[in-house]
Amino acid sequence: MNSPYLHRSIRKFKSDPVSENLLQNIVEAGIRASNTGNMQLYSVVITRDKDNKAKLAEYNFNQPSILQSPVALTICADVHRFCRWCECRKADESYHTLLWLLSSVIDASLFSQNICLAAEEKGLGICYLGSTLYNLQKIIDLLKLPDGVIPITTIAMGYPDESPELTERLPVKAVIHEETYKEYSNESIDELYNGIESLKSSKGFVNENHVENLAQVYTDVRYTKKDSIEYSKKMLEILHKQGFNI
Amino acid sequence: MNSPYLHRSIRKFKSDPVSENLLQNIVEAGIRASNTGNMQLYSVVITRDKDNKAKLAEYNFNQPSILQSPVALTICADVHRFCRWCECRKADESYHTLLWLLSSVIDASLFSQNICLAAEEKGLGICYLGSTLYNLQKIIDLLKLPDGVIPITTIAMGYPDESPELTERLPVKAVIHEETYKEYSNESIDELYNGIESLKSSKGFVNENHVENLAQVYTDVRYTKKDSIEYSKKMLEILHKQGFNI
Repeated sequence: MNSPYLHRSIRKFKSDPVSENLLQNIVEAGIRASNTGNMQLYSVVITRDKDNKAKLAEYNFNQPSILQSPVALTICADVHRFCRWCECRKADESYHTLLWLLSSVIDASLFSQNICLAAEEKGLGICYLGSTLYNLQKIIDLLKLPDGVIPITTIAMGYPDESPELTERLPVKAVIHEETYKEYSNESIDELYNGIESLKSSKGFVNENHVENLAQVYTDVRYTKKDSIEYSKKMLEILHKQGFNI
Repeated sequence: MNSPYLHRSIRKFKSDPVSENLLQNIVEAGIRASNTGNMQLYSVVITRDKDNKAKLAEYNFNQPSILQSPVALTICADVHRFCRWCECRKADESYHTLLWLLSSVIDASLFSQNICLAAEEKGLGICYLGSTLYNLQKIIDLLKLPDGVIPITTIAMGYPDESPELTERLPVKAVIHEETYKEYSNESIDELYNGIESLKSSKGFVNENHVENLAQVYTDVRYTKKDSIEYSKKMLEILHKQGFNI
């Protein structure tokens, strides 16, 4: 496999800034990504200001990567700009719907991944923060996001000050289905998850958390039923507040 | 900007097949993309079989790219495999929720974009089909997708038999906001959309469709209010049917 895709999340950065020009160049790579009907239903909010970054870090559970990074990029699904265009052109739009929420989340994600790969190609390191989805309202308020705009992830970015190992993944055959989806037997689950379950770090998590296995680390500690239900409820309210009719 | 990101959608392909080995290599690049908590909430279904591809093409409005391509990849948001693992490990999961739908759509999109860039790097051409979201149930049935799995896009892939020009995009400043989201004035909308509106092809669409401007081509012809409402309603029903509690 070629090296451009051998991503490592970077959580320790040098203090060197990321220049305006380089960042512009990287976002240019982002806008070349495929998108729905050339509507470009995404935006990026760049945070460099110290106070803003401190707040953004707080709203991302103070993860080390964002506390340390010189710049953070919040990627947004955005039907707002397109709708403003429609408004200016007396075009009767209807894009605050489930269909267009998903379309804009996909567009924004493709945009985001081009940005990250372009950044890494330029010697920068990045870390995606999934925590953005857990703190939507605070981030919406901080970044003053209008109706039709939903932050989907924040990327901590800067010059790497560490060289972590590649993360273990499932074997590639785990995610490939030929012609139709092949149901996973208990035996195939054992085989596919054996690599991850056998890691020393995984066994450490199991012991620390006093659970029986790694899957229970996920369900009982990291991503619990309580959070799944509570944050989904909040998310739906916030989508409504941002004008999406779902 | 570096060339890896100068994507052109390819809609005409040579008849040469894409080898099994190359495809595996490309999907390997996909699984290296960042994802939520290393849960890898995605799958890809590969369609090569002639009859299956004819049906998949039909369910994607018979777009030329998929009719012609030797292989098609349907990218799926997938919490099913992870939940099967949890089931096998007696871990009490709760991932059929809005929070995890969005997380899996984002994960699947990052996976997808790595696949496309890796394919292009290997000399292949690709075209994303947004039409997948409009034909969810038919595609779910064809590919036998179980609960927790939603197809989000289909990628037509093969060796290019055309060299199209780059598509016009908004200027990069249109999608960048510094520190906070800057509302678009009417004047800035005029400026940002001037490039796209001035294209000969755009003027052609306006004339052909007897509308006043390009925005109305979108709202009145391509992506109408009727479709937005109707397909969003269908989408919600299908999400429920696939087990998502939204």
